[in-house]
Amino acid sequence: MKEPLILITNDDGIAAPGIRKLISIMNNFGDVVVVAPDRPRSGAGHAITIEDNLRCDQIIMDDGPQKEYACSGTPVDCIKLAVNQLLDRKPDLCVSGINHGSNSSINVIYSGTMAAAIEGSLEGIPSIGFSLLDYAANANFSEAEVYIRKVIESVLKNRMEEGISLNINFPKSIKGQKIKGIKVCRQAHANWEEEFEKRTDPKGREYYWLTGNFINYDNGEDTDEWALSNHFVSVVPVQCDMTAYKAMSSLNLILKDE
Amino acid sequence: MKEPLILITNDDGIAAPGIRKLISIMNNFGDVVVVAPDRPRSGAGHAITIEDNLRCDQIIMDDGPQKEYACSGTPVDCIKLAVNQLLDRKPDLCVSGINHGSNSSINVIYSGTMAAAIEGSLEGIPSIGFSLLDYAANANFSEAEVYIRKVIESVLKNRMEEGISLNINFPKSIKGQKIKGIKVCRQAHANWEEEFEKRTDPKGREYYWLTGNFINYDNGEDTDEWALSNHFVSVVPVQCDMTAYKAMSSLNLILKDE
Repeated sequence: MKEPLILITNDDGIAAPGIRKLISIMNNFGDVVVVAPDRPRSGAGHAITIEDNLRCDQIIMDDGPQKEYACSGTPVDCIKLAVNQLLDRKPDLCVSGINHGSNSSINVIYSGTMAAAIEGSLEGIPSIGFSLLDYAANANFSEAEVYIRKVIESVLKNRMEEGISLNINFPKSIKGQKIKGIKVCRQAHANWEEEFEKRTDPKGREYYWLTGNFINYDNGEDTDEWALSNHFVSVVPVQCDMTAYKAMSSLNLILKDE
Repeated sequence: MKEPLILITNDDGIAAPGIRKLISIMNNFGDVVVVAPDRPRSGAGHAITIEDNLRCDQIIMDDGPQKEYACSGTPVDCIKLAVNQLLDRKPDLCVSGINHGSNSSINVIYSGTMAAAIEGSLEGIPSIGFSLLDYAANANFSEAEVYIRKVIESVLKNRMEEGISLNINFPKSIKGQKIKGIKVCRQAHANWEEEFEKRTDPKGREYYWLTGNFINYDNGEDTDEWALSNHFVSVVPVQCDMTAYKAMSSLNLILKDE
């Protein structure tokens, strides 16, 4: 019997410590193929490259058994290119990350890491995005690793529902505080309040840097934000039907006037 | 009383015929401010620019009364920058488009036009994305205009539900066939089957172009795909909670084993 084929990507770029860690973990579970952005693509959302062409070259990053490709495109491009062009069979699993920084709550729509996992699920592949609530390049992934192994074992044994991906976030590693376990959660209702930093370039022309503060409006104990702030691993199952079903009847009333 | 403040963007870029048409329509309804990408950003999804800075300069494109800014960022950047930096009050309405090409069904997650509308709704602004099922630069927007006027009148009179945006698609204009009316719909379950075109550059190095075919798996007569193929305007209310609520219990069973 063939080993499971595991496709890996991320949005921090192929050289990021988070994906290197994920590759080393996944090499224990099957044949690993990495197709990841050749540079950081954080905040790429579900972007695809259609105005430009794509480069995708095989590279060697370390002495592991995995096969690796660096791609000029977005995380979603990486999944599409892997599944439809580079791989000779459908992957058994698609994993994305480990992201440097949270992808909980509303971040799911901005995150390239989660977009790649969602794209995997659209291709009919069980798909998981992993993120650690620590932006540091030298973040400690050791606690996350324990839970990644548990989740992967379980997902390879039991089938995941078709069309669903998992958004898994790990609390930041804190000395003396152990992760309490896993919580299956809903996406908290939260948002970003942006603050643009206006600067002037050496030629006197203005430019901006996007910054912002994350605001959680949701006190529900069934949310990913609650789980994470209480030092649990949060697992949110994600689907792609964005229809606001509850708004349909009132909308019918408004537009009936026409 | 002040005129309604209307914010306009798109993903085809500030010079695209679709946004020029939308601006000319919206000038009848209030004070228009355009903040749109300085170049085509189709397929930008919900991408935001965080690895780079943003340029945003006021420009004059025609002799209309609107104020216009061309932005180096994505459609979502345009909304964030407009609301948090450029405008002195919160817009009463945010409209995006008119997109050259469909944003029905699963296209909602790839579309920069719809991402901008969704971002508007996240900022608490009634927001609408308009798209015409015609990629041509010289597409005929006259039928769409009639319905845009109707929808805008209605939305300015009645309040739209908070946190919801509208994904409105118009069938391609066909001579002798009149649009039958408006249908409030759910997002059809559909997908893209990619085909990458592999080419070789003058230096002998390979590159790829993303192409694909849209596949509709959903025969429901309550879907946007049904409405459009039956020559109705489709209106899908869109929300941002991507939690797969139905998958939570089975997932709890799978992950309980740990």
